[in-house]
Amino acid sequence: MAQKTLDFYFDYSSPYGYFASEMVEALAEKHGRVVVWKPFLLGIIFKQEGTQSLISYPMKGPYSKHDIERCSGFYSIPFQWPSVFPVLTVNAARATLWVQQQHPDMAVPLIHAIYRKAFSEGADVGQVATVIEAAESIGLDPDDVSKVIRSQPMKDLLKTETQAAMDRGVFGSPFFFIDGERFWGVDRMDMMDAWMTRGGW
Amino acid sequence: MAQKTLDFYFDYSSPYGYFASEMVEALAEKHGRVVVWKPFLLGIIFKQEGTQSLISYPMKGPYSKHDIERCSGFYSIPFQWPSVFPVLTVNAARATLWVQQQHPDMAVPLIHAIYRKAFSEGADVGQVATVIEAAESIGLDPDDVSKVIRSQPMKDLLKTETQAAMDRGVFGSPFFFIDGERFWGVDRMDMMDAWMTRGGW
Repeated sequence: MAQKTLDFYFDYSSPYGYFASEMVEALAEKHGRVVVWKPFLLGIIFKQEGTQSLISYPMKGPYSKHDIERCSGFYSIPFQWPSVFPVLTVNAARATLWVQQQHPDMAVPLIHAIYRKAFSEGADVGQVATVIEAAESIGLDPDDVSKVIRSQPMKDLLKTETQAAMDRGVFGSPFFFIDGERFWGVDRMDMMDAWMTRGGW
Repeated sequence: MAQKTLDFYFDYSSPYGYFASEMVEALAEKHGRVVVWKPFLLGIIFKQEGTQSLISYPMKGPYSKHDIERCSGFYSIPFQWPSVFPVLTVNAARATLWVQQQHPDMAVPLIHAIYRKAFSEGADVGQVATVIEAAESIGLDPDDVSKVIRSQPMKDLLKTETQAAMDRGVFGSPFFFIDGERFWGVDRMDMMDAWMTRGGW
């Protein structure tokens, strides 16, 4: 029997997605599940939904910045703001999709390397050079990564994946699916824990 | 020394505010604090902020409806949708402000009575008659309540209170202040618990 999954949708510009990326494997493991990592482009979905980046709202913006910093202490996960925010995530997402296809064993290390570059080291992962640096740090060939980031098949795949996420009802990051049940936000992870323990309610 | 407070801002149309109203007293008590109940009009703040009722977004809307129903099971708090939603909350909020002024001991029972009418019994608390019914159920004089709902001083006070909430950075319901620290959402109550335990971080 195939192992049960926990689908984890994330955008590399999402601080809450970063916090979730540091905790989702332990949560899945606790319940005998394996994480399926799904990078996508949140910006495209925001346009469709009529929403914006959290930090762009007059009151919700400053609150969210503070809340994100506070989450670092709450979850005991190091955090700093990237030098550019919000950040362009196409390059990082394309590199991830390619590694998932071509070097599946390297995919999770790459995701952590990119997310940590952004939110633990404060680098701009919108830059191709930063994505390549992250890839190199886990042993990937920088020339390969440089090429795939600009490749048409990866551009197309990212569009397809983002559309598929939207078709599934994903409108934020992080976003999770446990069997048919969807959860939005790192602050739903305790509910997900309860959901998996009790088998839903 | 005056007892420390936990300020709790809520709108009667907010299901997450209802869940919070059922749990906030226990949380405050645990940390030797007293709840300061602050009704306000969320709709006015939404206009200013450029946001809308959660359920009006194409994807976030259906998700939120489902999440709210799911919260009932997670928090073990009875829930049903009011017959009208979102609901007009001016009448309920004015009655509450008046009771807080004139019969302070009845204020918390009234808040629970109104919130439960809406989200446990499914009544339309936008109706003056429903607010009066809730007031009567806890022993208030229905004629008094009927009068104050239409009184200019209570209309003015609700405007003042809503403006004061906005000036303090309140943009959603439930919204909390612990000393200078603000928290938005029923799903921040575990962080508030940690915050009060650890004295911040």
